[in-house]
Amino acid sequence: MALPGAGVPGGSRVGMSDRERSCQGPSIEAGSGALNKLRARRLGIDTQYEAVVFMRKDCPICRSEGFAAHTRVKLTAGPRWIMATLYQVTSNLLDDGEAGLSDSAWHRLGLRDGDDIAVSHPPPLKSLSILRGKIYGKRLEPDGIADVVADIANGRYSDIHLSSFITACAAGELDTGEIAGLTQAMVKSGRTLVWERHSVFDKHCVGGLPGNRTTPIVVAIVAANGLTMPKTSSRAITSPAGTADTMETMAPVDLDLGQMRRVVEAEGGCCVWGGAVGLSPVDDKLIRIERALEVDSVGQMVASILSKKIAAGSNHVILDVPVGPTAKVRSRQDGEALAACLTQVGEAFGLESRVILTDGSAPVGQGIGPALEARDVLAVLQGTPEAPADLRERALVLAGAILEMAETAAPGAGFAAAAATLDSGAAWKKFKGICEAQGGLRDPQHAAKTRVFVADRDGTFEAIDNRRIARVAKLAGAPDAKSAGVFLHKKPGEDAQRGEPLFTVHAESPGELDYAMRYVEENPGIVTVEPRP
Amino acid sequence: MALPGAGVPGGSRVGMSDRERSCQGPSIEAGSGALNKLRARRLGIDTQYEAVVFMRKDCPICRSEGFAAHTRVKLTAGPRWIMATLYQVTSNLLDDGEAGLSDSAWHRLGLRDGDDIAVSHPPPLKSLSILRGKIYGKRLEPDGIADVVADIANGRYSDIHLSSFITACAAGELDTGEIAGLTQAMVKSGRTLVWERHSVFDKHCVGGLPGNRTTPIVVAIVAANGLTMPKTSSRAITSPAGTADTMETMAPVDLDLGQMRRVVEAEGGCCVWGGAVGLSPVDDKLIRIERALEVDSVGQMVASILSKKIAAGSNHVILDVPVGPTAKVRSRQDGEALAACLTQVGEAFGLESRVILTDGSAPVGQGIGPALEARDVLAVLQGTPEAPADLRERALVLAGAILEMAETAAPGAGFAAAAATLDSGAAWKKFKGICEAQGGLRDPQHAAKTRVFVADRDGTFEAIDNRRIARVAKLAGAPDAKSAGVFLHKKPGEDAQRGEPLFTVHAESPGELDYAMRYVEENPGIVTVEPRP
Repeated sequence: MALPGAGVPGGSRVGMSDRERSCQGPSIEAGSGALNKLRARRLGIDTQYEAVVFMRKDCPICRSEGFAAHTRVKLTAGPRWIMATLYQVTSNLLDDGEAGLSDSAWHRLGLRDGDDIAVSHPPPLKSLSILRGKIYGKRLEPDGIADVVADIANGRYSDIHLSSFITACAAGELDTGEIAGLTQAMVKSGRTLVWERHSVFDKHCVGGLPGNRTTPIVVAIVAANGLTMPKTSSRAITSPAGTADTMETMAPVDLDLGQMRRVVEAEGGCCVWGGAVGLSPVDDKLIRIERALEVDSVGQMVASILSKKIAAGSNHVILDVPVGPTAKVRSRQDGEALAACLTQVGEAFGLESRVILTDGSAPVGQGIGPALEARDVLAVLQGTPEAPADLRERALVLAGAILEMAETAAPGAGFAAAAATLDSGAAWKKFKGICEAQGGLRDPQHAAKTRVFVADRDGTFEAIDNRRIARVAKLAGAPDAKSAGVFLHKKPGEDAQRGEPLFTVHAESPGELDYAMRYVEENPGIVTVEPRP
Repeated sequence: MALPGAGVPGGSRVGMSDRERSCQGPSIEAGSGALNKLRARRLGIDTQYEAVVFMRKDCPICRSEGFAAHTRVKLTAGPRWIMATLYQVTSNLLDDGEAGLSDSAWHRLGLRDGDDIAVSHPPPLKSLSILRGKIYGKRLEPDGIADVVADIANGRYSDIHLSSFITACAAGELDTGEIAGLTQAMVKSGRTLVWERHSVFDKHCVGGLPGNRTTPIVVAIVAANGLTMPKTSSRAITSPAGTADTMETMAPVDLDLGQMRRVVEAEGGCCVWGGAVGLSPVDDKLIRIERALEVDSVGQMVASILSKKIAAGSNHVILDVPVGPTAKVRSRQDGEALAACLTQVGEAFGLESRVILTDGSAPVGQGIGPALEARDVLAVLQGTPEAPADLRERALVLAGAILEMAETAAPGAGFAAAAATLDSGAAWKKFKGICEAQGGLRDPQHAAKTRVFVADRDGTFEAIDNRRIARVAKLAGAPDAKSAGVFLHKKPGEDAQRGEPLFTVHAESPGELDYAMRYVEENPGIVTVEPRP
């Protein structure tokens, strides 16, 4: 095989910058630094968290280093380096001397077009011996687990390593000392907040129940009572809306850590997206693996929850655990075991926690989709007649528990105190203040296009297929199209008459509306109306 | 967001073939079949075993199905379907309505350019509950493990799932019943061979020692003694040569199962590449994960070895276990534990096995690279003066053990019997017969370009850096360039005089030779000559 000229070492050296020189020579890999350069090209490929590099199969680096497709390589650009998965190109997708990068690799290396990168064998993964120890039954000591978590934080663990770690921790059940060690290491992997006030409150919901958007309401009630609650939430991954998506239709949520701190200092609470603030970033990597395996070990769940709360500077946490046949926690017994572990490990960090087991059998509220769910939240805050009773009830239970924990309300009087804060308008006023502090209160948009789906006979609105109705909302454009989604006029168990609206599909474009409606027409079982006996 | 016209359902229906109709409609996913079509395009990307599909991020399927980057999707083309990893394209790499496929996805779906594929959510992975059971300490029953292995064989396990399975089996140590169940399931996942002769022999080497190419010699000696030995070997992954690469310089090795059977029926033995015959294909998938984790559990190693041998129809196996500080097996004790387990599980399949612990501290022979190693093999078979003594010795030990097992030689007389077969020329004659049956004996090529590296002083040839000398061979073009590599004129401990050759680099092109020599010049420590005291 002949070596293509431009790919020969030296061919990629045109236009060397100051940055480049710093990553040459023996620091990369003894003696091979100068041979391993390629010109970086951004391919515009989203691989999510995974850094991917595309190299020509006939490239001298692949040949000489013995790189096979799908191996892990080290990419170096200036002072930065990352680990990446290598795919090999056999077509003309890349020119000689070029390396194509995924968006994640590009951003993490801080590249500009035409920059050079060096490709080399990855350094040995020293924390693998700690992981192997756990596999073979050895207890995880704080130092060892800190090494593992640091390697995960630095992107040195592939899916194979991450999955092995999750599995080993689930198989060799973590004791409370190991959970505390894991929690501590996860907190240290990211940024942390420290507050001047002694008591800082937080809430967390285990397992996403559709429409369960209590967070903005709880934050408003708690902050209106003079307490501190620095809340971060996630965006949707596969659902039509996450709490951050919903909140974003009412106020900006992309705040950095400094901005978040200023909002909380001014208003006592916030409701921002967790992605930009960098609290316990390792947690997100582990959760993705746990989802794929459908493994939820108590130890990992506790470390996950506590690390985010401790990093946010919270020391009082209410945990909403929906229990139901299709929920994350299936029985009261499991819920109580989780509560016991959470309380015990939390105490090691001076964190007080209370677990509330709630009904996890059905969705909450009427809207599905960011703006539609936000309107449910606003209706509860404003006390309008159409406010969904179930959403209000759940928010008051959680807010009431926090008020009792803070001794702002007497034991057993928290729910009433929370209701009073809501009914007096104080919570709504506080919510407006928080939104203004986050960058300005917004009215959730209304969709340009709607289509009503009506009952085709008299009867009882029997059942709704949660998975499919969520899909209709996504087909209509949610969560990217903020005002898109589905509004449920009826909930299971209610009467419906022929011609009466059952649900309305909302979309921002006629195409998306058609797309969603076509799916509705092809799937007659999404809602069921049974004739009355 | 507006939907791009060509991506809208229907836009990809041009040129529907008979094949296409078979994968439309409810068979894909109730009601969404017609919406999920894209035009397949081969991107020329080698991702090895992993099937990858590239879709535009703004494609209606990604939007409506809620597909995020790096999720697993189901690809259907006609009657075939596979699981693939989705990456999302934000550049103009793909046109509207197109899906780009990796080579592995393309081949497994049997696509031609312009074919349509359907993309949908993957069906639930039912065997995950078996895997979770093992994680939480439940024993693997034969039915359960068969479900897991079938899902792995069908490509339904991602790296995350595979790694969890390997880890769970290592953590919850497999008992002999579980190992037998795993072995059985792995055999069933692929093809199998049945022989008319009662006794069928095999050998296996645990852990690749550089240059340890005993296989062609052992097969020739054993078959020359009238025994049956259907041997499959692997190609190099990261080394300069695998046994199949070496053998290929002397005869074709890409035989399918029927061709392999005919060679063995005619000559008693063969030496072919294992990749084309499809014996225990799940084994290869598991080995890749074990390598990444550096986890070698006895149970997995035994199931791996036995499944390949049983599928090949062997019932007598000699296992070469090199023991050394950098070998796979580090101590005699570990080697003996492996031997005990192998024997016990093998018995359940009527398989007799014997383990031979060998010296795993240094490379074997003089050549590094396919043709150069083949010349070592031929020298031993032909009994020429330059035949490496260490290679001859190891081959005779292994062949002798098989002759004793077969009762062709009395206990303790195997080595001598093997030596007699070799020295009489019978083994060389048999080897030529096997090569002819595989498609014709070839002379290993000689490299067009060579460069000698000489001692720069008088002294003792002290040490050789195995990893770096292997790298020189790869830089020179091995294993793709068959005649490329390194020939060692001296071995550690021998005297060297100033100007005497230490090693010669062989290459097929001047560019590759320069590339290898530049590396040699930049790395003065590859070989060390110490002045005599």
